Amino acid sequence: MSAAALDFARENRQRFLNELKDLLRIPSVSTLPEHQADVRRAAAFVAAELKRIGMEHVDIIATAGHPLVYADWLHAAGKPTVLCYAHYDVQPPDPLDEWKTPPFEPTERDQNIYARGAVDDKGQLWIHVKALESLFKTGGGRLPLNVRIIIEGEEEVGGEGIAKFVREHSDRLKADFALVSDTEMFAPDLPTLCVGLRGMVYTELEAVGAMTDLHSGMYGGAAPNPFEALARIISRLKDENGKILIPGFYDRVGKPAAEELKAWKSLPFNEEEYRKKEVGSKELTGEAGYTVLERTWARPTLEVHGMPGGFIGAGGKTVIPAKAAAKVSMRLVPDQRPDEIFKLYSEFVRTLVPKGIELKIKQFSIADPIVIKTDNKYVQASTVAMKEVFNKETVYIRSGGSIPIVADFEKFLKIPSVMMGFGLPDDNLHAPNEKFHIPNFYRGIESIIRFFQRVGNEG
Amino acid sequence: MSAAALDFARENRQRFLNELKDLLRIPSVSTLPEHQADVRRAAAFVAAELKRIGMEHVDIIATAGHPLVYADWLHAAGKPTVLCYAHYDVQPPDPLDEWKTPPFEPTERDQNIYARGAVDDKGQLWIHVKALESLFKTGGGRLPLNVRIIIEGEEEVGGEGIAKFVREHSDRLKADFALVSDTEMFAPDLPTLCVGLRGMVYTELEAVGAMTDLHSGMYGGAAPNPFEALARIISRLKDENGKILIPGFYDRVGKPAAEELKAWKSLPFNEEEYRKKEVGSKELTGEAGYTVLERTWARPTLEVHGMPGGFIGAGGKTVIPAKAAAKVSMRLVPDQRPDEIFKLYSEFVRTLVPKGIELKIKQFSIADPIVIKTDNKYVQASTVAMKEVFNKETVYIRSGGSIPIVADFEKFLKIPSVMMGFGLPDDNLHAPNEKFHIPNFYRGIESIIRFFQRVGNEG
Repeated sequence: MSAAALDFARENRQRFLNELKDLLRIPSVSTLPEHQADVRRAAAFVAAELKRIGMEHVDIIATAGHPLVYADWLHAAGKPTVLCYAHYDVQPPDPLDEWKTPPFEPTERDQNIYARGAVDDKGQLWIHVKALESLFKTGGGRLPLNVRIIIEGEEEVGGEGIAKFVREHSDRLKADFALVSDTEMFAPDLPTLCVGLRGMVYTELEAVGAMTDLHSGMYGGAAPNPFEALARIISRLKDENGKILIPGFYDRVGKPAAEELKAWKSLPFNEEEYRKKEVGSKELTGEAGYTVLERTWARPTLEVHGMPGGFIGAGGKTVIPAKAAAKVSMRLVPDQRPDEIFKLYSEFVRTLVPKGIELKIKQFSIADPIVIKTDNKYVQASTVAMKEVFNKETVYIRSGGSIPIVADFEKFLKIPSVMMGFGLPDDNLHAPNEKFHIPNFYRGIESIIRFFQRVGNEG
Repeated sequence: MSAAALDFARENRQRFLNELKDLLRIPSVSTLPEHQADVRRAAAFVAAELKRIGMEHVDIIATAGHPLVYADWLHAAGKPTVLCYAHYDVQPPDPLDEWKTPPFEPTERDQNIYARGAVDDKGQLWIHVKALESLFKTGGGRLPLNVRIIIEGEEEVGGEGIAKFVREHSDRLKADFALVSDTEMFAPDLPTLCVGLRGMVYTELEAVGAMTDLHSGMYGGAAPNPFEALARIISRLKDENGKILIPGFYDRVGKPAAEELKAWKSLPFNEEEYRKKEVGSKELTGEAGYTVLERTWARPTLEVHGMPGGFIGAGGKTVIPAKAAAKVSMRLVPDQRPDEIFKLYSEFVRTLVPKGIELKIKQFSIADPIVIKTDNKYVQASTVAMKEVFNKETVYIRSGGSIPIVADFEKFLKIPSVMMGFGLPDDNLHAPNEKFHIPNFYRGIESIIRFFQRVGNEG
């Protein structure tokens, strides 16, 4: 295997990082309509770079929402084809006042780069692009394997656009396997392959009581209170031990194989350390009889994310709001089916609606849970590539998060996904002070270079 | 009794209304720090007008919060002294998008003036000032009785400043009775005297779980969810029938006299009309076995006003927030004691805190519940004055709202309060599209002129 690409990547580290910073400065928050132009700007930025490094058929594909970016290079006759996937959109940055430095002014501190999207997923997207550049530049404008790349701008809002594209244009995405870098390493310096994801159903419950906001002095005792109604509903979705009370909810929940559970036990994980350093709460919560890794990887959960409505300023306002809402999501595990779960949830919630309240149930996004088999050659090649870079055996883990597209790739393209992720557990994904560990940015690029060379040589 | 003052008031109606509009344009929102200068501007506006009409010793009195405005005219030897009370601060205007016209651009529609503070309480404050002006201008610069006026700027944030002033400077407020115009009429055209108020305890529960916001995929199933905790707590504060479950909460709740309950039954009130036209909910809620008037006037309640924290934007964000809060208030009735109730509430809430959550309990404001005796001569005189203006018998009602200062006047000044209010039940107090019925603004001025003349003649 040629070391030239690795040398090129090492020599250009600072430039690669500076380019990433430029991308991080674009506030491509897909969920907020006021950032629509920024989202398009991020798509254009990525497309221009793909073109510059040598990718062909670079295309910004319109969808009903934010555009997809597609490119390919398909001249490695007889070699396998990889479909690289990443996303250029980011989560909203709020609460803004908790960021030490502004979310869209990337700042280096202690070998980390702090910015919204640093790890999720712009840093990891840039790893793909820079690995491809290194291979092109040192390979006489050629790659060791065939490459398609599809990058979406709606991952944080449910990924409707790419899901539709995958369903309807599977011919344009024909490949032997997908490479998805949107996950994390189990521990610093420990090369990790993610082989399972939880699914998701994200909903909003909107409770409407009176026709207008009312004074709690005048109407308290007669008018329905939508927050009280939502509190009553939420308190009955789970018991005090974290067991979800929706009838039928657990019917399709499978147990991980004994071998997988055994491997998890050998991972470097200390629940007390995790409680203190990662979560920081007095106690951990969740279902009794399961370890933290089982609870977050292999058991479903239900969470409340926010309750819009009423008065949320400083001090007091004596209002009974006409309406209030609760954002509630469920994480699912194989073999739960999101559509079925949403139906069970909706039916159960309807039985809990208190007197005087009208309830609307909205569904924002769904994702299938998935488990990837570890015995295919691409998974094996990625494991070896990472071991070479990190000088440690690669571990297999699952993630409690959801990447809906992985299930879609399996379902519609019939290909497995290799989830090589380079985030760290304390990277503050979706939270203030999101960061990416800069050495992992560089190691990620080298891992992908080695992985593609290995697949090209073996393929 | 001289009709000159009434004539003056009628001739100057348009000017009086235009002046009120100027006052309404000042966004004196006492609860929001960014409006501090506006609050002071409103105080200065009121003080300048008191001076202009002929009041003496006009003083803007600094407090730890927003200033008080004081003035007097004490040259009616041998006559009673009234202490006029009103407030110049207003509630926050949100939700802004539900206002048909901007909250601080007073707009006339259908004989109403729409603006934040129109009825609560700037319109009613201006009734006092314009009645005094009419009496001064037509009485050779003299009034028929002695007048002190004290106007606060913190009514909507708990009234700490005036409470302290009343406790510590009762000599400066020496009077025979107080006139408080911050209540409403029972029905359009029905002159109404309010003789009872609910008390209040306003609190905020802050639940803290993790040390930072966490991704619900990564941590869901292990990290405590503060919204879930608050939902669990709130759902256990009241049962499904509106009964408050705090032990000891009802111990001091008294029953209104049989005569008062009988009088309420004769008021023009239809629960189905009220449900449809005022509340607009599918059903009314509250304790079984009590009428709406009993539930809102003579029974305590507990309400949730807002639940700050987490993600409240459009769409979905998969966060387990580190903290969340609930604004919870209780309305109290005689003889419940706010301090005791806060203690019982806090003790009970502490027993409900779920695993992994730290709970902080804050208290923002309290008010004593009160009932005024109807057999004193000032109450009688006001009843007659309103009957003369409205050509109908004045009815006695209670209000479900709280005016803490009325209890303080009784406790520290040993004087009764005459609560003549000119708002209407559909005036959208504390809600979007707050209004004041313009004919009631004029009738209010005439009622107070007649009331003061009657007290002066009889005194």
